Amino acid sequence: MGRTAELLFCVMGLVKMDAPNVKRIYADNCATTVVSEAALAAMMPYFRECFGNPSAIYSYGQEAKKALEGSRRAVADALGALNNEIYFTSGGTEGDNWALYSACELRAKKGRHIITSAIEHKAVLGTLEKMRSRGFEVTVLQPDSRGQITAAQLSAALRCDTVLVSIMLANNVAGTVLPVKELCAAAHEAGALFHTDAVQAAAHIPVNVRELGVDMLSISAHKFHGPKGVGALFCRLPLVPSPYITGGGQEKGQRAGTENVSGVVGMAAALSEGVRDMAANTAHIQALRAALVEQTLKIPGAFLTGDPERRLPGHASFVFEGVKHSAYVITMLNEAGICASSGSACSASSKEAPHVLTALGYADDIARSAVRISLSHYNTAEEIDIINEKLPRIISEVRAKKETLV
Amino acid sequence: MGRTAELLFCVMGLVKMDAPNVKRIYADNCATTVVSEAALAAMMPYFRECFGNPSAIYSYGQEAKKALEGSRRAVADALGALNNEIYFTSGGTEGDNWALYSACELRAKKGRHIITSAIEHKAVLGTLEKMRSRGFEVTVLQPDSRGQITAAQLSAALRCDTVLVSIMLANNVAGTVLPVKELCAAAHEAGALFHTDAVQAAAHIPVNVRELGVDMLSISAHKFHGPKGVGALFCRLPLVPSPYITGGGQEKGQRAGTENVSGVVGMAAALSEGVRDMAANTAHIQALRAALVEQTLKIPGAFLTGDPERRLPGHASFVFEGVKHSAYVITMLNEAGICASSGSACSASSKEAPHVLTALGYADDIARSAVRISLSHYNTAEEIDIINEKLPRIISEVRAKKETLV
Repeated sequence: MGRTAELLFCVMGLVKMDAPNVKRIYADNCATTVVSEAALAAMMPYFRECFGNPSAIYSYGQEAKKALEGSRRAVADALGALNNEIYFTSGGTEGDNWALYSACELRAKKGRHIITSAIEHKAVLGTLEKMRSRGFEVTVLQPDSRGQITAAQLSAALRCDTVLVSIMLANNVAGTVLPVKELCAAAHEAGALFHTDAVQAAAHIPVNVRELGVDMLSISAHKFHGPKGVGALFCRLPLVPSPYITGGGQEKGQRAGTENVSGVVGMAAALSEGVRDMAANTAHIQALRAALVEQTLKIPGAFLTGDPERRLPGHASFVFEGVKHSAYVITMLNEAGICASSGSACSASSKEAPHVLTALGYADDIARSAVRISLSHYNTAEEIDIINEKLPRIISEVRAKKETLV
Repeated sequence: MGRTAELLFCVMGLVKMDAPNVKRIYADNCATTVVSEAALAAMMPYFRECFGNPSAIYSYGQEAKKALEGSRRAVADALGALNNEIYFTSGGTEGDNWALYSACELRAKKGRHIITSAIEHKAVLGTLEKMRSRGFEVTVLQPDSRGQITAAQLSAALRCDTVLVSIMLANNVAGTVLPVKELCAAAHEAGALFHTDAVQAAAHIPVNVRELGVDMLSISAHKFHGPKGVGALFCRLPLVPSPYITGGGQEKGQRAGTENVSGVVGMAAALSEGVRDMAANTAHIQALRAALVEQTLKIPGAFLTGDPERRLPGHASFVFEGVKHSAYVITMLNEAGICASSGSACSASSKEAPHVLTALGYADDIARSAVRISLSHYNTAEEIDIINEKLPRIISEVRAKKETLV
């Protein structure tokens, strides 16, 4: 992108972003979600009423401890885990960092080879980059055009010194749900540990750690209508994660720091609610998405990215021929009151093509046109009608304007 | 402690902890604090109204970003720092971990020697233990009986390969406020970086990073009437901390993970409020503490621990001759509706003597009798009267009962 385009990008990004008189349609639920009423209600007592430190031995602290352990049970139940296999974190990124660090620490004697996929979140890829600088060798598997990695592909890459395989359960940019059960079995056959980033999956598709067979799994509350700043790491017993954040004896001595009681309680409430309502929510969301995809694919030069079948229920992602950069589309959607994103939230303002889409084989210029619309059960058919009405016009406008813009 | 005593300790800790019909007096504000009304009010819009991801480029995300950056400014102002010297964390422990990790990474070429004090929080001592196993040499300075470390003492320990000095601003167990300005000057003279754990100090005593001269400083929101699960690390420019939690580009690329917007906003509100009201709060709290200390020291065999002059305004800590373990006292205080603690919250249930008090020269048996009463501006003179009435009786009772208990 040239200097002028970059400037325009900035101007569009920062100035033209106000849509004060338009009813907002939030369609970026893979970036973050609204805290559910139930989750917020569950959290409220822990700010001012039951604010004790769970480590304190007096009853007031023990009430907080009780809430914490009740939440641990709820999270464990939702994931098919045991209570003491659940560790609370500050979010998905910490969980991913911790899992990778732990596996490397725990299996350092076995070897220094790690396998991952090219479509992982940066919380995994960035952390493995750090591991690489510490002498670990990292093999990065390339997905097919739908974002799938096969067990055969993994098996071919596994070595006797492979200590860890980290492949996500569902992809944030392409929406693809990966065959983690099969991948995990392959990893175990070679004696490697298996971690999955389930940040996009938890409470959206069934996630059972026993069925999947994974050794470690990370989730993040704010992706399923819980609060930001809290998550959990599952670590299969007898495996215990190596302390990454060290200090006090919280989380059975494995994760120091006063527990975020309200956050944990909110996460547990949101996860329980999400799992309980999953079937109904999925039916609703999938119907909305079907209507959205059907209409959007009528736009000439529009293509669905990711796996059309095995994907997250609310996830629709497209590329548009002739659209120079998705930021133009996102900006105009925003002016129409619609919140959507280019790729992952964490790199939304990046001028580079989403790494997931280039890994799926898209050329940089088409990958840069990627628009992700991710729905929740709060979205309505009326909202989809509005998106379906606005999006084709916006794409046309962006295509028409592009000569003057760049 | 023998098996029987341990069992009794457990029984007391878990069963006799209910005090349902007693008005609660919360006097463990060094462990955690109630979220202030202002902080909670500031947080509320960020759960369900303005819940966007700050990394998103649409206006709805940018509103959250604005809240985040406004909070950064407020935190920076409160500490005398620049906006871009403030990094948000998941709490004091992460801040301490991050600071120590960063200093070691940034100065690895200079040397591998670190200096700390024996009275640091475990978030520092535990993390340095990890550094030690990675080839760093750690010198642990011993404080005097009041918990003080002098600049001369530090200077004598500094070496040309010292990369970092980490000494806290105020101690959680003994309440002592340390001469960080002088300590920092000494460290800088020797070319070492200086980190201070200001978790107990921020919003309780004046904390100005320029006046102190420190390179890094960590704070935790829940210690000053903000929410749990959020904190901040100050890192003096041009120094930039090395990423410890890696992934997305949040926090200028130095701390990955979707930002805990509501938490950060709550922290900023609480810190601003605390700094604004510090003079009035301090006068109120110090008067309460004076009344408490005066009465408590009338108990025969009761001694104030820590520095009687240079200490946190609301912090009173005592040891009691003839009290086998503070858990007995804490339990009976709890039955009377009073929340107090033995030493640090993070090791409240530990059967070992608080490491801070043994470092101050107390023998294990007397250190185990330590009771900390830490006040906030929410405490009242009436509450102190009740504590002053109950505590002497409880100490007598515990002393009388001890034969049968152990």
